[in-house]
Amino acid sequence: MPDTASKPQATASPPPPASQSERYSRIRALSEEICAPLQIEDYVVQSMPDVSPPKWHLAHVSWFFEAFLLKPFLRGYREQDPAYDHLFNSYYETHGRPFPRAGRGLLSRPGVSEIYRYRGHVDAAMEELLERPPAEHAAEIARRVELGLQHEQQHQELLLMDILHILAQNPLQPAYRDDLLGTAGHAPSELRWLEFPGGLRQIGHAGAGFAFDCETPRHRQFLEDFRLASRPVSCAEYLAFIADGGYARPELWLADGWSLVQQAGWQAPLYWRREEGQWLEMTLGGLRPLDLQAPVCHVSFFEADAYARWAGARLPSEAEWEAAAQDAPVHGNFLESGFLHPVAGGGPWYGDVWQWTASAYRPYPGFRPLPGSLGEYNGKFMCGQMVLRGGCCATPLGHVRASYRNFFYPAMRWPFAGLRLAKEA
Amino acid sequence: MPDTASKPQATASPPPPASQSERYSRIRALSEEICAPLQIEDYVVQSMPDVSPPKWHLAHVSWFFEAFLLKPFLRGYREQDPAYDHLFNSYYETHGRPFPRAGRGLLSRPGVSEIYRYRGHVDAAMEELLERPPAEHAAEIARRVELGLQHEQQHQELLLMDILHILAQNPLQPAYRDDLLGTAGHAPSELRWLEFPGGLRQIGHAGAGFAFDCETPRHRQFLEDFRLASRPVSCAEYLAFIADGGYARPELWLADGWSLVQQAGWQAPLYWRREEGQWLEMTLGGLRPLDLQAPVCHVSFFEADAYARWAGARLPSEAEWEAAAQDAPVHGNFLESGFLHPVAGGGPWYGDVWQWTASAYRPYPGFRPLPGSLGEYNGKFMCGQMVLRGGCCATPLGHVRASYRNFFYPAMRWPFAGLRLAKEA
Amino acid sequence: MPDTASKPQATASPPPPASQSERYSRIRALSEEICAPLQIEDYVVQSMPDVSPPKWHLAHVSWFFEAFLLKPFLRGYREQDPAYDHLFNSYYETHGRPFPRAGRGLLSRPGVSEIYRYRGHVDAAMEELLERPPAEHAAEIARRVELGLQHEQQHQELLLMDILHILAQNPLQPAYRDDLLGTAGHAPSELRWLEFPGGLRQIGHAGAGFAFDCETPRHRQFLEDFRLASRPVSCAEYLAFIADGGYARPELWLADGWSLVQQAGWQAPLYWRREEGQWLEMTLGGLRPLDLQAPVCHVSFFEADAYARWAGARLPSEAEWEAAAQDAPVHGNFLESGFLHPVAGGGPWYGDVWQWTASAYRPYPGFRPLPGSLGEYNGKFMCGQMVLRGGCCATPLGHVRASYRNFFYPAMRWPFAGLRLAKEA
Amino acid sequence: MPDTASKPQATASPPPPASQSERYSRIRALSEEICAPLQIEDYVVQSMPDVSPPKWHLAHVSWFFEAFLLKPFLRGYREQDPAYDHLFNSYYETHGRPFPRAGRGLLSRPGVSEIYRYRGHVDAAMEELLERPPAEHAAEIARRVELGLQHEQQHQELLLMDILHILAQNPLQPAYRDDLLGTAGHAPSELRWLEFPGGLRQIGHAGAGFAFDCETPRHRQFLEDFRLASRPVSCAEYLAFIADGGYARPELWLADGWSLVQQAGWQAPLYWRREEGQWLEMTLGGLRPLDLQAPVCHVSFFEADAYARWAGARLPSEAEWEAAAQDAPVHGNFLESGFLHPVAGGGPWYGDVWQWTASAYRPYPGFRPLPGSLGEYNGKFMCGQMVLRGGCCATPLGHVRASYRNFFYPAMRWPFAGLRLAKEA
Repeated sequence: MPDTASKPQATASPPPPASQSERYSRIRALSEEICAPLQIEDYVVQSMPDVSPPKWHLAHVSWFFEAFLLKPFLRGYREQDPAYDHLFNSYYETHGRPFPRAGRGLLSRPGVSEIYRYRGHVDAAMEELLERPPAEHAAEIARRVELGLQHEQQHQELLLMDILHILAQNPLQPAYRDDLLGTAGHAPSELRWLEFPGGLRQIGHAGAGFAFDCETPRHRQFLEDFRLASRPVSCAEYLAFIADGGYARPELWLADGWSLVQQAGWQAPLYWRREEGQWLEMTLGGLRPLDLQAPVCHVSFFEADAYARWAGARLPSEAEWEAAAQDAPVHGNFLESGFLHPVAGGGPWYGDVWQWTASAYRPYPGFRPLPGSLGEYNGKFMCGQMVLRGGCCATPLGHVRASYRNFFYPAMRWPFAGLRLAKEA
Repeated sequence: MPDTASKPQATASPPPPASQSERYSRIRALSEEICAPLQIEDYVVQSMPDVSPPKWHLAHVSWFFEAFLLKPFLRGYREQDPAYDHLFNSYYETHGRPFPRAGRGLLSRPGVSEIYRYRGHVDAAMEELLERPPAEHAAEIARRVELGLQHEQQHQELLLMDILHILAQNPLQPAYRDDLLGTAGHAPSELRWLEFPGGLRQIGHAGAGFAFDCETPRHRQFLEDFRLASRPVSCAEYLAFIADGGYARPELWLADGWSLVQQAGWQAPLYWRREEGQWLEMTLGGLRPLDLQAPVCHVSFFEADAYARWAGARLPSEAEWEAAAQDAPVHGNFLESGFLHPVAGGGPWYGDVWQWTASAYRPYPGFRPLPGSLGEYNGKFMCGQMVLRGGCCATPLGHVRASYRNFFYPAMRWPFAGLRLAKEA
Repeated sequence: MPDTASKPQATASPPPPASQSERYSRIRALSEEICAPLQIEDYVVQSMPDVSPPKWHLAHVSWFFEAFLLKPFLRGYREQDPAYDHLFNSYYETHGRPFPRAGRGLLSRPGVSEIYRYRGHVDAAMEELLERPPAEHAAEIARRVELGLQHEQQHQELLLMDILHILAQNPLQPAYRDDLLGTAGHAPSELRWLEFPGGLRQIGHAGAGFAFDCETPRHRQFLEDFRLASRPVSCAEYLAFIADGGYARPELWLADGWSLVQQAGWQAPLYWRREEGQWLEMTLGGLRPLDLQAPVCHVSFFEADAYARWAGARLPSEAEWEAAAQDAPVHGNFLESGFLHPVAGGGPWYGDVWQWTASAYRPYPGFRPLPGSLGEYNGKFMCGQMVLRGGCCATPLGHVRASYRNFFYPAMRWPFAGLRLAKEA
Repeated sequence: MPDTASKPQATASPPPPASQSERYSRIRALSEEICAPLQIEDYVVQSMPDVSPPKWHLAHVSWFFEAFLLKPFLRGYREQDPAYDHLFNSYYETHGRPFPRAGRGLLSRPGVSEIYRYRGHVDAAMEELLERPPAEHAAEIARRVELGLQHEQQHQELLLMDILHILAQNPLQPAYRDDLLGTAGHAPSELRWLEFPGGLRQIGHAGAGFAFDCETPRHRQFLEDFRLASRPVSCAEYLAFIADGGYARPELWLADGWSLVQQAGWQAPLYWRREEGQWLEMTLGGLRPLDLQAPVCHVSFFEADAYARWAGARLPSEAEWEAAAQDAPVHGNFLESGFLHPVAGGGPWYGDVWQWTASAYRPYPGFRPLPGSLGEYNGKFMCGQMVLRGGCCATPLGHVRASYRNFFYPAMRWPFAGLRLAKEA
């Protein structure tokens, strides 16, 4: 296990115990804090089908509480507007007909203030429900509230991803915030190869804490001995791949990745650009000189996989990653660290950048989705996507754990995603 | 010429003479009045590539004055932001590289207040230029100012078209304004066939007043005797076409129109919908019961042409239209009438709905575009589009004339466009 | 009128009078002669949606006789296969449901020999019908037979266009025929400007000979004085346009053309390529060094229009072209000349290359389509296309005339199309 | 293990030992036998980008021997045509630039006879090489010859898949062969649930026989106890899923599958159609009444997965399948059985239909691709595809084995693919 105590890094200790009601307030407030630096116009834009307008996020996470808690459990609850059940349903086909995802940016109404009013409306009702939950449903309510809060935390990260993508389309290159902590001056630890013994390992979530259905059931998986790099790949290391013709050598790429490289003209990570001989990167703090020491970020699975092949290594499987990380404390550079960008020298396993794994996102043996419409939360996406592990600089503190499975399509580059290398022992 | 004196209609008399500076102020103010009912979010959305976000319109028309008047003629002029010359250039390729049209909705910045500040910045500089134009360029300046104002009037209509299109995408069906005059209770005049003698006629603009380059030169055209309907086709008449299977009978359609009908599933004009046996129409005043008496609106050229064939008639050529209308006064239901929707019993030739003609938009014999980048204003669009005549309920008063040539692609339905029938004599 | 008597050119005199039955046999035989050099595989390919597999052409023209003559007029006629009425209906929606155009290349069956058998089947029945036409329909039959033969002649040219396009996709660059006459050594006449007086002119077809419905009615059109170039633009002249940056200067292009230039990367006419500093052209005779003297061919309307603007000229209107050419004999380099490629020094008005005009393909005043399904022949295509005049090196002798209106979309480059310049007087 | 001895099924025993040269001749001949019923036109069509024209297959498999054996190892070898190295390279980017896959149907040349000549040319040279292989490369040559033959066998199945797809596009619904054995009258065994113990199992190829690189290395995998159905799902069973609204219930589908169902309008397996109340299926023997007893075929992974969910079961992992089947003999309904269609009552594990598994096609732990360009054979496709097991009625006898990993994208329906159900123990 690498010694990282002396590194200048953010710390992500587990949140102190709190009542669910306090937790509700705190998490709901954070979503609004994230949006505070936005101008009203920024709330409206959908820069690609995968991105949602920030005001949609704010409404959708409220709809989640309305649809799955207030309507079923709060007697006498009245919606602010019945149309919202259509507009802010993301993809719950068994709940109702969702408004088409790619059209979210067509909706100027309800406006931002109306959506904040909707949040207040939901919060007031949730406060009532949390204070006096009907006894026969109290356990289910507590479970769903926790799910709703975890869901909102996921959208907090999505908000930051989407805001960056929206602002990055703009030739003015506006900064989301001018006051973010700078990342310069932090140095990465030397890259070491950590050895892990194989054998039959327990993978997946167990125990009392919250986990998504896709992290369960805990099960056995046999691993060969393996080695993992002690930290993610840095921008300087990734530049060596580019300099060595990485984006022009088909033998390094999966076939679908190579097609994309050619069609889309990829030549560097998503937000990098070269101007007058200098590499710049668009960040939530605006356009900055590339921080060579920081972990490389905003690469697709295809790029991560090609880099690993070039480096004579491979990506770890999700089981290897989990086996390696499961006893380590969850600390690193998370949303609350104040960077909103990867920083060199961060936590050994968590934070900074999601780490693409070699594993397709598929159900664990014996997987059962949640009952009812909530069963659409994770299970139906288990095809065509790859697992990422570890959280990132836009993930709220306390949201991830060793068994946490994030997932994206292999071509996606707008997540805060990088990679860690693996090798056979 | 039909007698319409007794009809309840709006009157569009020529504007009283005014100094160019007064005219500048009045027209610039109208653009902002049009946007006054919008929420900030409404300014941002681009609902299809043909539509521009309202804030883009407001900035672009200002850029026009900046690019073609302030920069060339106002000594010491400083731009508010040099990036605007890229962002708000619509299609002047010889002036600079325009920002891609289809991406206008990706730009949350500059925000609405910034764009109003830009308008003020341009207006202050224009005031200075108009007060003390350099003598050697005074005539050219006056010509360009007039062009800039006519250009802004065109965008006033586009603003209303685009606002309607944006709001119509929204399942909430929000009204642009709740206080518009109602159209119910107006009755159309009886449809009569007006006869016009053929012969060698003068077509195109001549004389001192303003006209776009595409209206010139005035030239001779030979016409056979012809007949024109005394008013546009009404919604009730168009419903008969629908009821008779108009959208299901290929023999009524041009081939490209029939393809579209099938692909896009057209079954009625753009903003019509049938709910519980009743026809409704989305308007700038919100969703309303269809006004059967009003001229049919928001039909494509293909629909206009199919209707005419079904009715045993045809569309008029633009020369026929102009020969018929050129001595009539320009009055009818225009923007200032307060309906922002076609109304039965309006002006015999002008207002309510643009009238699709049978004529392709091509240069007149001897046509010369304006010199320099302003030559891109009209000439380069003279392919693939059809001419419309007469102005509409969203056209500013005084903007159209007998020789005015509007043009759209034959598939477009978001203009306020209807049709008038023609026949051989 | 230019003197071309001394030029080495093919002559296209009117065909000698012949019985309709002889004419039927001769024209039907020519279609098969055109296909004789093909391998069976060549008959099957559809290289783009606008192209049809040669075997489809051979069947479709036979279907035309079957659908419009044999079934209505030959008592007891039996189809070879009822499915052909669907497969080989091109676009007659009121006759039945046509097989989708873009899918013609999906059909390996019926095979080539089956289609030749179908031709024989139709020919035998047509022979019977032509020998003993029912008296009460004899006139209509004669009219339709002539239409069917003119239709087949159009497909003879389409066959050659499509064969060239099919073979040009192939990196092997196979020649359609190795034995075509060479075009080298012919020199163009010096370009002169021919002056034509304006005034009220008669345009359109009149008289006893065959014409398509779209050429009628003959009508008056007023023309200003104008000048036309004495011959089409040559490849050498077009190369000067390219060398002067013609494909990189937006001010020369219509807006839709400029979009295409950028999207499609056009840099030269369709079949030109530059290899090791030399310009080559793919032709029906295979890949050849570009014949600089020959008329430029396989340019779109957009390219023709841009060239004309660059040359300080314009394209002629179709009325100007017809007024100029209507008294000239129809001679020039046609299909039968044995070049199947434009040749320098050809006929002054006809042959070599279709000449793009400035006119949109729209109905003449008083136009009436043919009755019944045959009314779909021309009328429904009168939108979005441009008129071309004069015939080309792939047009059968005797098929064109002064009033003949060919038409294609402005982006199309696979016709044998070039241009002639025009100017105001 | 189910008793299938009494079932009317084809037997696929291992091929008798043969010299590699005999094996070469036999396998090469089979490709040509498969094509013997084709008309020349059938060889040319590419009915979708995934399909290749039969003549391309015949050439490509020959190119494989040329590129990887004759050029490197046969001194003095001369290509028939150097252009073929471009035209018939499928996807070996490190070997040279492959001709674009989606354009294979644009090539009428080289023609069919030329391609048979090419096969002869390659065969003659291969005979020479096989008779006198240079000693220092003999082992590598033998390995590559075997790979080339296995490759050709894969294309034999692809040929049959593609021929069916090509003929199925044709409204004439032509049969590939009229003389295929009928499938009616065979009855499926009763469906039983076979129980398998979990534990640490060995998966992947080991031993002396041929296997593709992707089947290696043999490695340990931990499995929970599981149950597998004793036979694939039948058409009758699948019809019950359809009748129960299977294609209209989003809760049964993976999200990407549900999108496809809606976009593409899937309502049944690929080649099924309902006419006058009867289900028909297009087969290599032409359009036939659906054989309800036969295994369902031509379903996508998405359909297989939805069916399994509907049935309260799941798909097996590839490891479960392999663990269950690895000791069973490889017999069942293969290409040589003479049905070319699934038949009820076939082999318990092999033949009839490929069985979609729940496993994404990813590298095994420690996977190493072949060196050089042959490394592109399998490894670069290990993303986005799902594994299928067991072979099908179009797979050549002796080609598959327990460790064989076939793979297709989850939306593909033109393979002969069905499914077997699995459950937890």
